[in-house]
Amino acid sequence: MTQNTADTLSDTSSDTSHPVAPAPLTLLGLGAMGTALAEAWLAAGHPLTVWNRTAARAEPLAAKGADVAGTAAGAVAANRLVVVCLLDDESVEEALAGAELAGKDVVNLVTSTPGVARARAAWVTGRGARYLDGGIMAVPPMIGVPTAGGYVFYSGSSELFEEHRAVLAAPAGTRYVGEDAGFAALHDVALLSAMYGMFAGVAHAFAVVRGEEVDPAALAPLLSSWLTAMTGSVAATAEQLVAGDYTKGVVSNLAMQVAGVPTFLRTAEEQGVSTELLTPYFDLMKRRLAADARNGAEDLTGVVDLLRA
Amino acid sequence: MTQNTADTLSDTSSDTSHPVAPAPLTLLGLGAMGTALAEAWLAAGHPLTVWNRTAARAEPLAAKGADVAGTAAGAVAANRLVVVCLLDDESVEEALAGAELAGKDVVNLVTSTPGVARARAAWVTGRGARYLDGGIMAVPPMIGVPTAGGYVFYSGSSELFEEHRAVLAAPAGTRYVGEDAGFAALHDVALLSAMYGMFAGVAHAFAVVRGEEVDPAALAPLLSSWLTAMTGSVAATAEQLVAGDYTKGVVSNLAMQVAGVPTFLRTAEEQGVSTELLTPYFDLMKRRLAADARNGAEDLTGVVDLLRA
Repeated sequence: MTQNTADTLSDTSSDTSHPVAPAPLTLLGLGAMGTALAEAWLAAGHPLTVWNRTAARAEPLAAKGADVAGTAAGAVAANRLVVVCLLDDESVEEALAGAELAGKDVVNLVTSTPGVARARAAWVTGRGARYLDGGIMAVPPMIGVPTAGGYVFYSGSSELFEEHRAVLAAPAGTRYVGEDAGFAALHDVALLSAMYGMFAGVAHAFAVVRGEEVDPAALAPLLSSWLTAMTGSVAATAEQLVAGDYTKGVVSNLAMQVAGVPTFLRTAEEQGVSTELLTPYFDLMKRRLAADARNGAEDLTGVVDLLRA
Repeated sequence: MTQNTADTLSDTSSDTSHPVAPAPLTLLGLGAMGTALAEAWLAAGHPLTVWNRTAARAEPLAAKGADVAGTAAGAVAANRLVVVCLLDDESVEEALAGAELAGKDVVNLVTSTPGVARARAAWVTGRGARYLDGGIMAVPPMIGVPTAGGYVFYSGSSELFEEHRAVLAAPAGTRYVGEDAGFAALHDVALLSAMYGMFAGVAHAFAVVRGEEVDPAALAPLLSSWLTAMTGSVAATAEQLVAGDYTKGVVSNLAMQVAGVPTFLRTAEEQGVSTELLTPYFDLMKRRLAADARNGAEDLTGVVDLLRA
């Protein structure tokens, strides 16, 4: 689904057509995501030990061949590779507190902030284990389905990642993004934050046409195509940030775009739609222009500067 | 660039490989967009009469074969098809006030709100002309370049559109979206609003990784691919709106997504990034959930309801 990056470790696709040597592993946590991961590993032929606080969730997996451990410590003891997919960071500490971690390879897929991931990495490595953090860019139905395009960002121990990359790639594609244990979460949050921005814009778009004789199903492909085309600007923004020159390759400059803002706000008013999802961005565009008239020749990239304290 | 819609009138691509019979037309307004349009029509072999308040801007076009009218009224008198690409609606009224419009086909490409477009349509048709409104989904460098994917939304007189669709298609693709003269502006604003939402999300994403050892140029393709993949949700949202059932086809429900919000806000705080671009959408998600716990089983589509007064 995603394009290549400069990182040579980053592109392992989920591909069940090339069988991997069976490698045993342990999985802690059998929520919707954990269960999907477990099923993918079992389907790929990996001996799997599972543990879940509520034991009943392990029963269907036991029927499919998983070993069910009675305690988290027992599950950790069973294999060197230990994948953690619990509710939150507190659950991770609780589950691992009583386990012997020395010599283990801990892969933590629990969603967290970069700071929390770094702290958990220090805690785990302090107990003698290697640590890899993961940020899952998929929902459970995409796990074990290579064509679904889901993948997992990994960061932390590159040795751990290299040693286990084949088994890690069974449920979903993998993208290694650096030794810093916080980088998987950082990338995860960056992509999802951008997505929520897009969702906000799409919600506004549907609200604006509501009450008119416009079929949302006819608008949808127009919206999707337009947004897809406009993702081309992401690379341009990156280039401008790298160059430190926000006028590089500008096609519609800040001054022109700020001049167009009243049309968007007035249309929302005409249609009885709140502007609350659009005004924060427009306000930053205006602030950037107001700060220096020369900024009018820039692209919209100066907004990034204004977001940092 | 865009996909088909149910409207059979909507798909005329800009395609200069199929020459169109020369059809004369008039263009009022030679800003960056007007000039690009004029060049595309001249390149396609259409006899063109132009007028611009500042006459000097017409000189390069005269050298390429355009007739230059001394007054807007004179330009309007020269041809039945009159395309208007002036700065704003006030300029349109000013330019057309002294012209004889009876029997003319007026195509107004000036950006406006749906309400302003409807009012201008009534004003023009009241003077005996047919009226078509346009919303240009392109920047000037995309005009006359079929591969650039730009197009123009048209709404208003379908007779006018049908009669002139070949000449209108010379500069960019065309999409006719209905007899209501306000619909071109409505579609234009809807798509651009969604785009600004996406830009806001992308700005936040780049701000979040700033100061870390993350190359924006490596992040960009990951962001673009992720956003492109997530545009798949636009069709799902449309289906839910049409069905009036926001639980239809949910993969990650509102309750789960609201539970994930603190990670995004805390990450921004850790990274020293303002949350102002994300909180309005998150707040609406939370409001929808707080209104009725059963909404937790919905997709995020309920936010659309909250945007309407």
